[in-house]
Amino acid sequence: MDNEPDNTLRILVATDNHVGYLEKDGLRGNDTFTTLEEILFLAQKHKVDFLLLGGDLFHENRPSIYCVNEVLRLIRTYCLNDRPVQFELLSDAKTTFGTTSFPSVNYLDPNLNVGIPIFTIHGNHDDPSGPKNVCAPDLLHSSGFVNLFGKSESVEALEVSPLLIKKGSTKVALYGIGAVREERLHRLFRNNKVTFFRPETDANQWFSVAVVHQNRVRHGPTGYLPEHFLPDFLDVVIWGHEHDCRIEPEWNSSQSFYVLQPGSSVATSLINGEAITKAVGLLEIRELQFKVR
Amino acid sequence: MDNEPDNTLRILVATDNHVGYLEKDGLRGNDTFTTLEEILFLAQKHKVDFLLLGGDLFHENRPSIYCVNEVLRLIRTYCLNDRPVQFELLSDAKTTFGTTSFPSVNYLDPNLNVGIPIFTIHGNHDDPSGPKNVCAPDLLHSSGFVNLFGKSESVEALEVSPLLIKKGSTKVALYGIGAVREERLHRLFRNNKVTFFRPETDANQWFSVAVVHQNRVRHGPTGYLPEHFLPDFLDVVIWGHEHDCRIEPEWNSSQSFYVLQPGSSVATSLINGEAITKAVGLLEIRELQFKVR
Repeated sequence: MDNEPDNTLRILVATDNHVGYLEKDGLRGNDTFTTLEEILFLAQKHKVDFLLLGGDLFHENRPSIYCVNEVLRLIRTYCLNDRPVQFELLSDAKTTFGTTSFPSVNYLDPNLNVGIPIFTIHGNHDDPSGPKNVCAPDLLHSSGFVNLFGKSESVEALEVSPLLIKKGSTKVALYGIGAVREERLHRLFRNNKVTFFRPETDANQWFSVAVVHQNRVRHGPTGYLPEHFLPDFLDVVIWGHEHDCRIEPEWNSSQSFYVLQPGSSVATSLINGEAITKAVGLLEIRELQFKVR
Repeated sequence: MDNEPDNTLRILVATDNHVGYLEKDGLRGNDTFTTLEEILFLAQKHKVDFLLLGGDLFHENRPSIYCVNEVLRLIRTYCLNDRPVQFELLSDAKTTFGTTSFPSVNYLDPNLNVGIPIFTIHGNHDDPSGPKNVCAPDLLHSSGFVNLFGKSESVEALEVSPLLIKKGSTKVALYGIGAVREERLHRLFRNNKVTFFRPETDANQWFSVAVVHQNRVRHGPTGYLPEHFLPDFLDVVIWGHEHDCRIEPEWNSSQSFYVLQPGSSVATSLINGEAITKAVGLLEIRELQFKVR
């Protein structure tokens, strides 16, 4: 793919950054901010097309002013610049970003100079709440600093419209489902209330990626999202929420897709899974092929 | 002044917006957001050079996510655009904005298209707190949506460097002092620990404006800022914090300056002062003359 950069979409994938976790700790207080900065630095260094986050960017549903301020500072520093964005968005931004206060993608805003777009879903830690269903990542979206998608307003059905991204000969349909309470999502899938919309023409020519933020490991009968619930036209599922890093794509033969689980970018608990080396993934897609580095 | 627009600095002055006040109230919940939108609309309609806020933009030190989101949405909608900014900043932004995470003025950032700059100090409601001394208006500054000045890090002295603003033949030195606990500020003035820096050359050719956010009415011996504490080289003092609207400039003959007290833009208490009609002021300055409309 290296020899066809104009046809290769390069995506830096990270999840569960939990920014603000232990921010008052004298020793580890800066860890989450430093890690976010490293991720943004890597996005810049590797000249990715965009950064894709799998939820729980913030550790808390209502992060401190200091925490939000640091995230704004870091994103403004690393992502607002003159770098040209080299992909096109063919889907209707009003649909994919319809549940935000700016139903548009940030890098096309003539008032903002976005060099590294960030696409993110929300996690269970930074989920929407209150009457207007606003979440902490909405602040970043409203500033024009990230693109928040996969946010649903309905509790009775879930309609998932993809971002249709085209770079040269490569076409990627990117589906996002922000964190939904496990039992509810389980029920929605069981009752056939989840609809994935596919591109109208040549659907099979699109490389399909979904990013979800749910339990992957079974927690009781309905407390997780079984992989086989997800549609088998998907090529890659990026799994957020699970904290152990399994960045090597894992083949699911019954669904014929790969699962990529970046794991949290910082350790938030003393479990074995958290002791595995942390990593972010560089996902490269060219036409219907991909690789992860 | 109308016939010399290129030499007349037009400033929309408002204060104590208390955005988020009673946001959960079914009847009045939207009032503060609507009022902020009206102010931004007026700034646009009257083609002002900038909007100057006197503190307490937010009602709470830690506003809700919804509240911050609405403020970001409104400012992005009204203030980010192609309108050319027609004044120059001659002072060093690193000094005036040195206590923020972006020691620069937003409209000169090549990555942001700021059409209506906002300058603001913090009030006692949205004051800095915590180890890093961050306040809610910092979020707006870090987004590049406002310019937060008048924030001091020292409790033992107060050094006030002006923003030096030039438009044609008009030169304005704008001093800001964010809310300081009344007793402390009183003591600082009594002990000669407050220094106002003046322009190095032709100081008297600069029209001097200060914006403060303190009690103007006496509350016990040290619980207010006596007008005569302020230096007499000032031409106009814009007084935030006091909620009654006294938008007509009031002459202080001992100090030979005018005091302009816009009052809060929304009623937050059932006192007589709050029953006076609310207003914002359009301050026009040409060389050493001014008027308020």
